[in-house]
Amino acid sequence: MKPYVKQDPWSIIEEGFDPQKQEISESLFSIGNGHTGQRANSEETYSGSSLQGSYMAGVYYPDKTRVGWWKNGYPEYFAKVLNATNWIGLKLIIDGTELDLAKVEVTDFRRELNMKEGFLKRTFTAKLSPEKRVHIKAVRFVSMARKEIGALSYELTPEGFSGQLELESYLDGDIKNTDANYDEKFWDPVNQSVNGMRASVTVKTKKLDFHYCTVKETEIHQNGSYTPIESTPVLRDKYAGVRADIALKDGEATTIYKYTAHVTNRDHAKEALQAKAEQALEAALQAGFKQLQKEQAEAWETKWLDSDIVIEGDTAAQQGIRFNIFQLNQTYTGEDARLNIGPKGFTGEKYGGSTYWDTEAYCLPFYLATADSRIARNLLVYRWNQLGKAKENAAKLGFTKGALYPMVTMNGEESHNEWEITFEEIHRNGAIAYAVYQYTDYTGDTSYIEEAGIEVLVEISRFWEDRVLYNKRRGAYMMLGVTGPNEYENNVNNNWYTNRIAAWTLSYTLDTLTAWKEKQPELFTTWQKQLGITDDELTKWGDIRSNMYEPYDEETGVFLQQDGFLDKELMAVSELEEKHLPLNQNWSWDRILRSCFIKQADVLQGLHFLNHEYDDETKRRNFDFYEPMTVHESSLSPCVHAVLACELGYEAKAYDMYLRTARLDLDNYNNDTEDGCHITSMAGTWMAVVQGFGGMRVRNGELHLNPVLPENWDGYSFKIVFGGARLLIRVAKSGITVINETNQSVELSVNGSRITASANQEVKAG
Amino acid sequence: MKPYVKQDPWSIIEEGFDPQKQEISESLFSIGNGHTGQRANSEETYSGSSLQGSYMAGVYYPDKTRVGWWKNGYPEYFAKVLNATNWIGLKLIIDGTELDLAKVEVTDFRRELNMKEGFLKRTFTAKLSPEKRVHIKAVRFVSMARKEIGALSYELTPEGFSGQLELESYLDGDIKNTDANYDEKFWDPVNQSVNGMRASVTVKTKKLDFHYCTVKETEIHQNGSYTPIESTPVLRDKYAGVRADIALKDGEATTIYKYTAHVTNRDHAKEALQAKAEQALEAALQAGFKQLQKEQAEAWETKWLDSDIVIEGDTAAQQGIRFNIFQLNQTYTGEDARLNIGPKGFTGEKYGGSTYWDTEAYCLPFYLATADSRIARNLLVYRWNQLGKAKENAAKLGFTKGALYPMVTMNGEESHNEWEITFEEIHRNGAIAYAVYQYTDYTGDTSYIEEAGIEVLVEISRFWEDRVLYNKRRGAYMMLGVTGPNEYENNVNNNWYTNRIAAWTLSYTLDTLTAWKEKQPELFTTWQKQLGITDDELTKWGDIRSNMYEPYDEETGVFLQQDGFLDKELMAVSELEEKHLPLNQNWSWDRILRSCFIKQADVLQGLHFLNHEYDDETKRRNFDFYEPMTVHESSLSPCVHAVLACELGYEAKAYDMYLRTARLDLDNYNNDTEDGCHITSMAGTWMAVVQGFGGMRVRNGELHLNPVLPENWDGYSFKIVFGGARLLIRVAKSGITVINETNQSVELSVNGSRITASANQEVKAG
Repeated sequence: MKPYVKQDPWSIIEEGFDPQKQEISESLFSIGNGHTGQRANSEETYSGSSLQGSYMAGVYYPDKTRVGWWKNGYPEYFAKVLNATNWIGLKLIIDGTELDLAKVEVTDFRRELNMKEGFLKRTFTAKLSPEKRVHIKAVRFVSMARKEIGALSYELTPEGFSGQLELESYLDGDIKNTDANYDEKFWDPVNQSVNGMRASVTVKTKKLDFHYCTVKETEIHQNGSYTPIESTPVLRDKYAGVRADIALKDGEATTIYKYTAHVTNRDHAKEALQAKAEQALEAALQAGFKQLQKEQAEAWETKWLDSDIVIEGDTAAQQGIRFNIFQLNQTYTGEDARLNIGPKGFTGEKYGGSTYWDTEAYCLPFYLATADSRIARNLLVYRWNQLGKAKENAAKLGFTKGALYPMVTMNGEESHNEWEITFEEIHRNGAIAYAVYQYTDYTGDTSYIEEAGIEVLVEISRFWEDRVLYNKRRGAYMMLGVTGPNEYENNVNNNWYTNRIAAWTLSYTLDTLTAWKEKQPELFTTWQKQLGITDDELTKWGDIRSNMYEPYDEETGVFLQQDGFLDKELMAVSELEEKHLPLNQNWSWDRILRSCFIKQADVLQGLHFLNHEYDDETKRRNFDFYEPMTVHESSLSPCVHAVLACELGYEAKAYDMYLRTARLDLDNYNNDTEDGCHITSMAGTWMAVVQGFGGMRVRNGELHLNPVLPENWDGYSFKIVFGGARLLIRVAKSGITVINETNQSVELSVNGSRITASANQEVKAG
Repeated sequence: MKPYVKQDPWSIIEEGFDPQKQEISESLFSIGNGHTGQRANSEETYSGSSLQGSYMAGVYYPDKTRVGWWKNGYPEYFAKVLNATNWIGLKLIIDGTELDLAKVEVTDFRRELNMKEGFLKRTFTAKLSPEKRVHIKAVRFVSMARKEIGALSYELTPEGFSGQLELESYLDGDIKNTDANYDEKFWDPVNQSVNGMRASVTVKTKKLDFHYCTVKETEIHQNGSYTPIESTPVLRDKYAGVRADIALKDGEATTIYKYTAHVTNRDHAKEALQAKAEQALEAALQAGFKQLQKEQAEAWETKWLDSDIVIEGDTAAQQGIRFNIFQLNQTYTGEDARLNIGPKGFTGEKYGGSTYWDTEAYCLPFYLATADSRIARNLLVYRWNQLGKAKENAAKLGFTKGALYPMVTMNGEESHNEWEITFEEIHRNGAIAYAVYQYTDYTGDTSYIEEAGIEVLVEISRFWEDRVLYNKRRGAYMMLGVTGPNEYENNVNNNWYTNRIAAWTLSYTLDTLTAWKEKQPELFTTWQKQLGITDDELTKWGDIRSNMYEPYDEETGVFLQQDGFLDKELMAVSELEEKHLPLNQNWSWDRILRSCFIKQADVLQGLHFLNHEYDDETKRRNFDFYEPMTVHESSLSPCVHAVLACELGYEAKAYDMYLRTARLDLDNYNNDTEDGCHITSMAGTWMAVVQGFGGMRVRNGELHLNPVLPENWDGYSFKIVFGGARLLIRVAKSGITVINETNQSVELSVNGSRITASANQEVKAG
């Protein structure tokens, strides 16, 4: 399908109605506020192909695992984010004809996702009969300012006729996940009620007892002012609606306002849910639609102030990067440490809405650099909260100590069940340790380590200790039977990246303990006692750190992705005929596995994370060796390569890599946007711009920039929240400008030169 | 559960009724004739736990595959043998009380599987009330002489009362496979009818259009003679029964005879099914139950004449080996080349009743040595018939030439879907080539090679050519990403066995072509043309054969199971605490994979197949290295080790290995006999006795024996069909006797000495 989104710096725009594009648009135009999310389904009935999706963060269901061949250690359940009560629904029958865009003629259709102010707007004209047209303007948002509130306005203006609107404004909790393994419904009714124009539905999950209550008020305005309406209730299990007959006048607008409050027993006592929802709803009603919309615009203004990127001279690029930032901010807002970032956010239900290592490896840098540090900190607290389950997971797999974080999880329990990934892709543990380092180094805030992080580091280190094997023949520690970041290799021995990140974890844990032993001996002693840290253990970790086997080839000077990698037939992706790509659609799995082709950065992931430990020549040798064999069939692959390519001066390659993800969903590059947007890879695009083109690094608490300007751009600028200040970095042909937008002065280096960005000052730098 | 089968040389006997044992007994006491099979379910209603199982050879269903995570190349369907019309059923209500062993008191229960004559017999007394007892004697069999016929007699004798029997003698085709992936029923009704005491049910499969027609006649005998009875029909979809009221007299026997004919459109035209069944049934009725039973005894006498093994001084061993031979003969009779040997035969539905490499690797030797050569030949023809599908399979996985036989199949298409097995356990191709060699060398019959086998060999050789990779660094051909026979390793590089059997295949194919080029140049030329054999191809095969990489360790002098095997922590199974075993129930899959422990013979499988190519010291080094690490968690493992252990003089080890399979099902060793018996591993037990203790080998068409007598036995004897003769080999403390029971003299060597076994003569040999 040809890309159809109109280019615009601040909005995603679709013009003209095409049923073929509805499910893609439902994903693209999704709205969310970190608490709830809503695909861009239409308010009115749509009988065409559609994935109705309303999601509540943190409300999940343990769906019974489906697997062909069971392996010992597989989880019995797969936690899934739940598709929940549809709160936008309006059934609209005008003079006997139902408004359904699959059935009436539609003209002047325009859909806009306004990213600047955070709302979705649709306008169109429906031709109900040769004589009867109705103009529709629908606006909706979920409030960033009031997390439990969603609101919509739906304006109808008849043209050429006056008539009768039969309205049913409803809440429908009888919803099924499309990805249910056994076609089950996960929701049971609790109660539903109607009182005048107010309706409420409470449902609960069949397992885990999540209660979800939605209350809505419907208001009708005509001639610009509130019009009281007679209504009758429509009630059945999990469904509550109000039905009303409304007279429509030719040329006059009738507006239906629907205010909803969404609350769950994650945040409130079960018995208080309805009262809490009513309370939030009342406040919203008091404020009114306009005020709520104003608050929404203000909340987004604040978000953009911290995180905007401006690209000059390339509207497509501008729109792409803003779309990514917008979606990241819609998905995770960082107030609730029990939440995390599902690969599809609130835009679809694929991948169960669960947490992957994507969070630590790809998303953390974005939130670290574009928001208050507590946002990123909560991503770390999430893992700390789940440490107990990670220890259980390690024990379940037969380890005698330590914690193995799950590959995919909602509540800390493993959800995935492919042995080669679930049991073997253990490098995820390293990324979680690395996140502790990254956060602490970036923010200078040691409180996380002191309160929680040290326990995470110690338990992960213990896992590595138990997982390695000392090989006497080689006098080194090894790790057999792992899957590295490149999932196009399974069950390999001594994946360089995994061995390296394990050794790095031990090193960082030991260095942290040593540092605290010196500067805070009492705290160190407390840790020793509480965590049962022994000297023998520390000695052992030191030994493993120093004697970890790192496969390396003398001849080429590259780290070997794994033992035996050079036994493969080595060739560049460019030598393959087009018809073979993407490999994952054209090759059998065994053929992929025994080929040299790489799904996503593996050795290079290590050089990315541990960037400061390797010199340029080492990076160049490995990049030159591995990148040509990389098919980038994970949306998380190009960003890491873009960052390294910039560092090595391969600007064309970097730009090429950047392009592969910048508009991945907007242009439906992988033909799968209808399932939802690739949220976690959006953070990778941000990384490609800021760490890639911007050359941003923080090491030892110091901020470094080495910006380059892609040829196709006139200039660009990005924000960095660092050291209590917010900097705007502008890169133009004429040079680099650093603008400190805050009252806090900070130091940084630009192209190797140390400069001071004084409070509220602008400084030219190179 | 404690073993409960009574020891007896010719029968399997259960005494006393225990509901806990019913499902195990249903498997153990199964009857079959290669065409149909029936678990030992009771004729009368049984409301306790039971797996009702009636199976028809070659009638299968493509059940939709169930898999957690799809991989490119997976088959969409899994062919399953079908649980089909229940033909044994009798509903018996005596004076208002239904005879149901789960509900009435049962005494004097005895069940016997008479292996000598091939029938199942049950006798018991049911106490219907304090005053009313009824003695039951039920006998049934499926006829070896008339493949489409099954018959049963069911005798009731009231004690202490005369009363009324309400009988419903039925055929029930409304049957579901317990292993249906989506709980579907696979059968649709075609028609059902009743005519007097005759009933018929025809059903067809929802896919593939298999039609299965069963016709039955019920006869009542009282006072020893036929008694006409009034009956009424009971008809519904897929079900036909006759209901009759019969007066039972105190102390007098009433016998219900049920004769059935089972026919399918595999053997007859669809429209002629009922007529064919009626015809077969009429003939059976003419013969009568006694005559049918006599034919059955005669047919089994012939089977035993060819295949019996006698063990003196050890009844348990005697019963065990006869049970294995009996089941093998019940499962496969070799008349129909479209059939093969499912791992559970007709005793259960696990593993889909499909064909595995078990056939070539473990079963072929049994059928070769205990029956006319056409029986074994048909197992080869089966693969030849499926060559087209094997070529399709290779193409589907991306190969440009050759054939890859499926891991699991019913009709030649792959059914299995674990990538590490389906795509990677390619050594199965080698076993299929090896079977051609084994058959030809054993029988001296070159007609299979000439008519079909050469094409199989050429296409398998072409597959190996395409599958290997020339490694310039090492100057050798390699195979990356395979799974060897030891499935406790997945996706390894250069599994020695796989590399070796591939090189051997190329060698055997080349040698065969060369031999025919010399002796039958015209045929060779025809092959060249028909199969498109080129000189380049032959040169290439020669190069691969000579330069195949074989991992070997200089220090220990052993072949390496795979690259990197010595990097593992090597330890003996005996060093593990008991609680860890069996590993497959106690360890997570990754732990199993990265351990050194071996599921079944892998390197040793190669030394078993290519026994003649290796000297004793090589075998000993490898056996001593690998056997202690072997957990034998496949029932196919111990036999290969028993054979090698005997050869190496490790008699105690051999006997220990023999014991692990000899009574595997009879003593329910693995706690899974209720799913069905381990048919293919039964051939392994035969192998342990004849190739192990008997030391039987055939090389270059010559028969060799090197018998040893296990300490626990007084003596043993076995049969070998070879060179047109049938030999009885008797091994006693006093020496070895060879008795030629036929008119055909043959030569053989015993303990290295050449002797002649003259027609109908007995000869002492060592």
